[in-house]
Amino acid sequence: MLKVPEHQVAGHLAIDGKLGPLVDDSGRFYKPLQGDGRGNKELAFYESFSSDTRVPDHIRKYFPVCYGSQLLEASNGSGLLHHLVLQDIVSSHRNPSIMDIKIGSRTWYPEASDNYIQKCLEKDRRTTTVSLGFRIAGLQLYEGKESGYWRPGRKEVQSFTVYNVRSILRRFVSSNSSIGNENSDCSFAPSIYGGSAGILEQLLELKAWFEDQTIYHFHSCSLLILFDKESVSKGSASVPEIKLIDFAHVVEGKGVIDHNFLGGLCSLIKFVSEVLSDSKESSIKDCVESEKPGICTDNGNCQ
Amino acid sequence: MLKVPEHQVAGHLAIDGKLGPLVDDSGRFYKPLQGDGRGNKELAFYESFSSDTRVPDHIRKYFPVCYGSQLLEASNGSGLLHHLVLQDIVSSHRNPSIMDIKIGSRTWYPEASDNYIQKCLEKDRRTTTVSLGFRIAGLQLYEGKESGYWRPGRKEVQSFTVYNVRSILRRFVSSNSSIGNENSDCSFAPSIYGGSAGILEQLLELKAWFEDQTIYHFHSCSLLILFDKESVSKGSASVPEIKLIDFAHVVEGKGVIDHNFLGGLCSLIKFVSEVLSDSKESSIKDCVESEKPGICTDNGNCQ
Repeated sequence: MLKVPEHQVAGHLAIDGKLGPLVDDSGRFYKPLQGDGRGNKELAFYESFSSDTRVPDHIRKYFPVCYGSQLLEASNGSGLLHHLVLQDIVSSHRNPSIMDIKIGSRTWYPEASDNYIQKCLEKDRRTTTVSLGFRIAGLQLYEGKESGYWRPGRKEVQSFTVYNVRSILRRFVSSNSSIGNENSDCSFAPSIYGGSAGILEQLLELKAWFEDQTIYHFHSCSLLILFDKESVSKGSASVPEIKLIDFAHVVEGKGVIDHNFLGGLCSLIKFVSEVLSDSKESSIKDCVESEKPGICTDNGNCQ
Repeated sequence: MLKVPEHQVAGHLAIDGKLGPLVDDSGRFYKPLQGDGRGNKELAFYESFSSDTRVPDHIRKYFPVCYGSQLLEASNGSGLLHHLVLQDIVSSHRNPSIMDIKIGSRTWYPEASDNYIQKCLEKDRRTTTVSLGFRIAGLQLYEGKESGYWRPGRKEVQSFTVYNVRSILRRFVSSNSSIGNENSDCSFAPSIYGGSAGILEQLLELKAWFEDQTIYHFHSCSLLILFDKESVSKGSASVPEIKLIDFAHVVEGKGVIDHNFLGGLCSLIKFVSEVLSDSKESSIKDCVESEKPGICTDNGNCQ
């Protein structure tokens, strides 16, 4: 009953005889515990996190539910292997558009070895991690029944510049995404990024927690943005989601805030809010140009 | 009329025939333009900053006024040298307690050379820069007429740990600072860190700007905290001050917020607000223990 996840946009894929995560039909995601200690560190994080009463409920919803670990046949045929059993956060979406954004202007942590730090630093400098405080680690964009998904390859993703990131954050919420970056209409920005349940409000809620919490430092952790473009187009009340994933490099905060994650999060917030305010401005312009005697509503429509 | 600044707590000192800044009696500070281009970069920053209309007035007050540059006899006897002419921000204080805090979890910038980056990174890892997002670069603490100033030496400052930083932020606003770190009473915390014109409010005002501004990235820049302990003790209305200094490594923001500075600033804010809330808690305890039928006021006194 286990299969390769259809909508995995980053990380190791369980294809071509390789080791990777699996999913079942009941909404669970099985992530193999990596042998170098990372897997156990991630399991330990989930155990500590799920029982930590200092984490408020409105923050807990940004993390996948963890159901412990389980011995399973590994996807690479190497036999039984411990897997972390998590909520499959994609399973509730039909045609999910997903962005995996690794947060922080460094992916290494002070306690790591010199070799590990140099390796991470090199990649952080090569990508937008150092300059932006985050990098896109993978994405898929549902473009419609005919075109299917746009999912750039790993090499393309790793070469994204600041300019590309800005374009993709626009293209991600555009109805004409397949036409090309320059002409993105950002018509879904008000309903995906904006609004009281939108991505921006969720990012701000996370930010408020990160300004205060000194329990964990989330190195090399990803923030997923997920939504269903089709249900948005049809005006149904599908809520865009944010989830944090990948906790193999979480360390204790020891009374200090996670300023590395927080800085990157604030940078992402600035980018998202710019897309949103640009889209509002252009709909005001559209209203004016169409000579409708109206005001633009919050979701960018003319009244 | 030029002399060596009495209250310089970090940077090159103009003593023993060395090159360093000078001050005069009219409240001006003369900083020699370093020959490796840094001096000119700092001058260029001040010129760009002072004419940039995007910088709001309530933020401008956190920067020293710049009066251009001037040829002066250098302090090391090497002859005439261009000096940056700045407001001497210490001159308005009689017995200033000063802390120089270098903000950011990295002091290098992406465009720098590999050698420079490695040199900075090493120091950032050796100090609290990486772990805290800031490091104390120097300080002096006025302890009273008899004891004068406590000013730890450069080596001591460079070896400050997270624990030391937390102690010093308490000791900085204590009336019994000379007794030792453990017993700091933090009795000045409500009037220095707290209140509507206090350090915490000023830090929050700066933070709001850094969440939005994408003009400059302030690498290796310092935030000074200054106040007169004597006037606070006497209850006079001396306002604690924040100034940003050292702009030789400022680069263009290119539409991205300075997430490195912002993250460190948020970390400092958390530390300062913890000292403040601890001091409030202990004065409530004092009120209760003294059985005064009162409430604690915002400045930590019993009513």
